[in-house]
Amino acid sequence: VSELPRSSVLLAVGTELTEGVVLNTHFRFLGSELKSLGFPVVRAVQLPDEPALFGAELRAALAAAGVVVITGGLGPTSDDLTREVVAQVTGRKLVFQPQVWETLLGMYAASGRQIPQTNRKQAQIPEGFRILQNVVGTAPGFWGRVGASLCVALPGPPAELEPMFLRLVVPVLEAQAGQAPGEQLGGELPGSVFMVPESLLEEALQQGRQAVVAGPSAPAEGGLSWGTRVAEDRITFTLRGAEAQGREELFAYLQGRFGPLRLRRGDLRPSGLLFELLRQRGETVSFAESCTGGLLAKMLTDMPGSSEVFWGAVVAYANAAKTSLLGVPEATLAEHGAVSPQTASAMSYGLLRCAGTGVGVAVTGIAGPEGGSAEKPVGTVWISARLREGAELCRHFLVPGGRDQVRRRSAVAAFLMAECLLRGQDPAVLG
Amino acid sequence: VSELPRSSVLLAVGTELTEGVVLNTHFRFLGSELKSLGFPVVRAVQLPDEPALFGAELRAALAAAGVVVITGGLGPTSDDLTREVVAQVTGRKLVFQPQVWETLLGMYAASGRQIPQTNRKQAQIPEGFRILQNVVGTAPGFWGRVGASLCVALPGPPAELEPMFLRLVVPVLEAQAGQAPGEQLGGELPGSVFMVPESLLEEALQQGRQAVVAGPSAPAEGGLSWGTRVAEDRITFTLRGAEAQGREELFAYLQGRFGPLRLRRGDLRPSGLLFELLRQRGETVSFAESCTGGLLAKMLTDMPGSSEVFWGAVVAYANAAKTSLLGVPEATLAEHGAVSPQTASAMSYGLLRCAGTGVGVAVTGIAGPEGGSAEKPVGTVWISARLREGAELCRHFLVPGGRDQVRRRSAVAAFLMAECLLRGQDPAVLG
Repeated sequence: VSELPRSSVLLAVGTELTEGVVLNTHFRFLGSELKSLGFPVVRAVQLPDEPALFGAELRAALAAAGVVVITGGLGPTSDDLTREVVAQVTGRKLVFQPQVWETLLGMYAASGRQIPQTNRKQAQIPEGFRILQNVVGTAPGFWGRVGASLCVALPGPPAELEPMFLRLVVPVLEAQAGQAPGEQLGGELPGSVFMVPESLLEEALQQGRQAVVAGPSAPAEGGLSWGTRVAEDRITFTLRGAEAQGREELFAYLQGRFGPLRLRRGDLRPSGLLFELLRQRGETVSFAESCTGGLLAKMLTDMPGSSEVFWGAVVAYANAAKTSLLGVPEATLAEHGAVSPQTASAMSYGLLRCAGTGVGVAVTGIAGPEGGSAEKPVGTVWISARLREGAELCRHFLVPGGRDQVRRRSAVAAFLMAECLLRGQDPAVLG
Repeated sequence: VSELPRSSVLLAVGTELTEGVVLNTHFRFLGSELKSLGFPVVRAVQLPDEPALFGAELRAALAAAGVVVITGGLGPTSDDLTREVVAQVTGRKLVFQPQVWETLLGMYAASGRQIPQTNRKQAQIPEGFRILQNVVGTAPGFWGRVGASLCVALPGPPAELEPMFLRLVVPVLEAQAGQAPGEQLGGELPGSVFMVPESLLEEALQQGRQAVVAGPSAPAEGGLSWGTRVAEDRITFTLRGAEAQGREELFAYLQGRFGPLRLRRGDLRPSGLLFELLRQRGETVSFAESCTGGLLAKMLTDMPGSSEVFWGAVVAYANAAKTSLLGVPEATLAEHGAVSPQTASAMSYGLLRCAGTGVGVAVTGIAGPEGGSAEKPVGTVWISARLREGAELCRHFLVPGGRDQVRRRSAVAAFLMAECLLRGQDPAVLG
């Protein structure tokens, strides 16, 4: 048996997908699994239940890739075409499998139901293919070699597909690939960056690569590449290349540029980093939020187990709430305004007077679209982070973007300010 | 200009998709929309950021379908290939668009940042294509006729893609399809539904259509169709069909089934509905949140202008916070537990004692994954909505799903409970 070409094509069959009735989660699951198995996906196609389109796609897929995974179309109804189309494209007969039929009969008998005769087609498999048992539903999958490729058919429901792939298909791929997983892949270095615009990261990556390639331990040309992804609260990136040293040098270049608080190794969230640090230190936190309006609390409590480190928050949106809940003096609000270092500081001070936590973080700012002025434009944010023992950091940020972005970026800055304070660092490292 | 063939191909470009780092939700959104616009999707393809694969796929797509929609690849980085590949495949030059550049400069200037030179490529559009303005992010989309087909390029982030498609591309498709908007397509009736599972909505739509078609004013066969879309806090749907009467009858059927609070006309958010009602009545609201951990406050303050109706919130996550901030008696917590009608009621009572608002809403529940029991499983939620004048509604919900879903669905239920109370309705209408 020849070695499989190191690429995959996915075919997801079902008019419920192309018409947008059902969200396709297979591409994400299979894309991630196949990539780490060393068969990156080069094309992933959704098709309606149309035998001609399906047949043409399958033919093209088998010619193009080492692994072809078909999802869906294995049910008992007339829409379910996968068995027939695979048989036709590969020139095989459909063969009735008595043991599959026995299993189906047993499942129905156990639940006291009569098996419909239409289900008989589920016991048919193209000749030469092997059965993949379904431990959750009725439709078995199947797999077989077709020329140079491996063709796998899996049932559509994620609850059936995912365990079948992990338990039965992964070992087949590893065996058929003729080598240990990961051997041929080359390494990767994943990282996260906070409070840095995507274009600035890209610029730094390109300049960093030039610096590394020009350096004394230059990797082979083209040896360094990357992918970046913008998420709500961070940009994650993956550095790729033939040698670990080049990746490490590029990472070190980036960290020199953005500092160790804003650039981290691994896919990490600012809220998760604060959570971990608090947990390690046996510390708890509370928030006083104005412009973020509950977002800090929401982001921290998104994480299961956050009750271990989170006491609560005061969302003091109206000035009256700042006064009555946090004891911010009316004179402070009148004299300096709600968005000022004095108010931020008074908020964190008042917060720690009512919250029994070691750390308190206060955020006040102008999220927009209204409320900005020449002196205090939209995006002006003051953050005060305070320890029960008395230490305080209070800093100004001018956060770019619209209302959503100002709120999200302020929350990220607040998490990092708390980390700064707990680690005893200068908040100037936040750029 | 010839009429467009009635089919679509979707191309989603991005290695983050094929590697399974990001879940692709575009196929669902666009599949549903294009189907109801009369351009059903015959193929939807995900591709890595590889110009050769992308070019070949685009060429095939333009030969195969009336409408080709490309998503992603419009950012400022070297991964972002859509502009270049469209130009190359269609044999056009890339033309620098000063007005796009001006807009970008303006966006950066407004936030006090320097625009990186790499962003300049975002101002390039293939010759003969027209710009689709991005009101949310920096990357504009574009569209143009290519032979017999219409080629549309949209930015990858769903928050940018979806409004751009609905506001700018739908009218183009209707116009290019060679007919007045709505003429062949029939009119539309948009709606939103809350706290109803998708499968139940689909069932009700099908049964409703049968009832309408069997009724005395039956529309022409096939005259009634719909698209649905699942959002964070609601499902939105669009009823389409040749005659207004049929759409209205179907809508009335749905409203009879789900009640007037859970089923609304138009694309509406539960937080927005409460906001509007409060504004109309000149009322303000405050929240006491436990399991939702700031999400209620976050959702209300997502909306510009929310300071008009929102005083603030107390996120009392730890029991100590419930006692110290809201005055929930320790005996109540000890005797009935933090998730109980007694605690929910004491939270809203304590909230209105410190918050100067007309309405107070308290939520306490078990979001999971830990903390459930046989008696109080994960998803058990108690909500108390209270008026300053004294009236209170307190109700139990058993919310299905994982941690995120329990939190989001609890927030939706809380907004609707407040509406129930303000409108003097029985919360039994919430199902």
